Amino acid sequence: MLSREINRYRYFLEFAYNGKLYHGWQIQPNALTVQEELNNAFSTLLGEKINLVGAGRTDAGVHAAHFVAHMDLAAPVLDPAELVFKANRFIQGGIRIDAVREVASDFHARFSALSRTYHYIISRKKSAFLDDFSWSLSRDMNFDKICEASECLSSFTDFTSFARLHTDNKTNDCQVALASWKQYDDTWVFKVKADRFLRNMVRAMVGTLIDVGLGKISPDGFREIILAKDRSAAGQSAPAQGLFLTHVEYPKDGFQTSPRSPFFKFF
Amino acid sequence: MLSREINRYRYFLEFAYNGKLYHGWQIQPNALTVQEELNNAFSTLLGEKINLVGAGRTDAGVHAAHFVAHMDLAAPVLDPAELVFKANRFIQGGIRIDAVREVASDFHARFSALSRTYHYIISRKKSAFLDDFSWSLSRDMNFDKICEASECLSSFTDFTSFARLHTDNKTNDCQVALASWKQYDDTWVFKVKADRFLRNMVRAMVGTLIDVGLGKISPDGFREIILAKDRSAAGQSAPAQGLFLTHVEYPKDGFQTSPRSPFFKFF
Repeated sequence: MLSREINRYRYFLEFAYNGKLYHGWQIQPNALTVQEELNNAFSTLLGEKINLVGAGRTDAGVHAAHFVAHMDLAAPVLDPAELVFKANRFIQGGIRIDAVREVASDFHARFSALSRTYHYIISRKKSAFLDDFSWSLSRDMNFDKICEASECLSSFTDFTSFARLHTDNKTNDCQVALASWKQYDDTWVFKVKADRFLRNMVRAMVGTLIDVGLGKISPDGFREIILAKDRSAAGQSAPAQGLFLTHVEYPKDGFQTSPRSPFFKFF
Repeated sequence: MLSREINRYRYFLEFAYNGKLYHGWQIQPNALTVQEELNNAFSTLLGEKINLVGAGRTDAGVHAAHFVAHMDLAAPVLDPAELVFKANRFIQGGIRIDAVREVASDFHARFSALSRTYHYIISRKKSAFLDDFSWSLSRDMNFDKICEASECLSSFTDFTSFARLHTDNKTNDCQVALASWKQYDDTWVFKVKADRFLRNMVRAMVGTLIDVGLGKISPDGFREIILAKDRSAAGQSAPAQGLFLTHVEYPKDGFQTSPRSPFFKFF
């Protein structure tokens, strides 16, 4: 039995979106965002004003293969599968709703999340098809050095060097549980999992790791950049279109989720 | 030793393109086509006027994972790999040049081709990412009936029922070597290989096969449509964005090529 406030039913939504077609997750004036599109869809379908609360936010151009948000309703959803079906018909291209499930009313899409996982995709060969879904980088790079540099990430907690300046973060501490690279033929894939990420952190991390691959920075230099706790020490951000949020994880007894592949399911 | 006319060097190009970004292969006024883009690029890079001759033509929106064209040059290409590299830098997104190779001067991109292979991709679930690369069709369909209907394709030669009206084709005869369907989770993939294809033929074929899947036409009815030799008997064309030309095959001693996967290399 879920704990529930009277007349307040909390539902989690799981969905994917194409970052190319929206200006990020969070509502903003004069640009279509995923949050706005979903608020409109569910408000219409459910007949009450919906304000989704997301697990985080992604910047313009960043994709999500797995994103989670919650909404509070005055009445329960009688047929969640039907709501998913209708929502997918209602919402335009570039967003797919995967599930709608009730949770305890104190369970929160953002604050209850245990971890987020991102994948970053690098195309090592010009592609006719993947310009919107990867960073195309065919220059000579040393993959082993990139892997070597990445190994240190889980031993640090303060990622100020990969944070944006002038944010209202109380701390820049993140627990990185996993950071690894894999090669699939002409594609290099970076996977990183942490309890939280600072804005732009993965892109700054990848951009700096690419400088390691190009020989501009040594793996030791990469460690020193993190130790410097200074954003200006790091490299530039990798472009948004290579980045996919692929898993938001919650306590399993509250809301069990599964990791997704960044794009196709073949990874 | 290649047979060669004096001062005439024939080169075959292999390349891929994203049909979303170009109005098909063939040059036309007021719309950017792949042929125009490549003619411009190679004319500039080689310092002579290039007019590529393609293995066929694809309509607006249709993709090519493998396309072949030839060009005749007054001087030989000293470093084909360097030309490929420069062409990929010169040409904008959505086209990738894979190879430039010299052939005998009587070898022709269109007339020497032995076969063409197409793949058609159907997404059985709404996708956040594949709208430009598949036909999204989540309605109930009977996959086995589609397969059953497709089996007869290689026993027919006259495909007037899948041809456009009022073309200047001498015949509508095609030798279909292979026509089969495969399922990869939520993706259905049709593969068809023939010596030649009529314009719009694969899309009309797939559109009619989908009517079989939906139960509007029986597998026997599909045979009767082909026997009718009447385009109006068939179903409507499947949309362009699901179609990929994936292999143009030549006599191996003249120009050996390999089949490509339609989109990602995972098929």
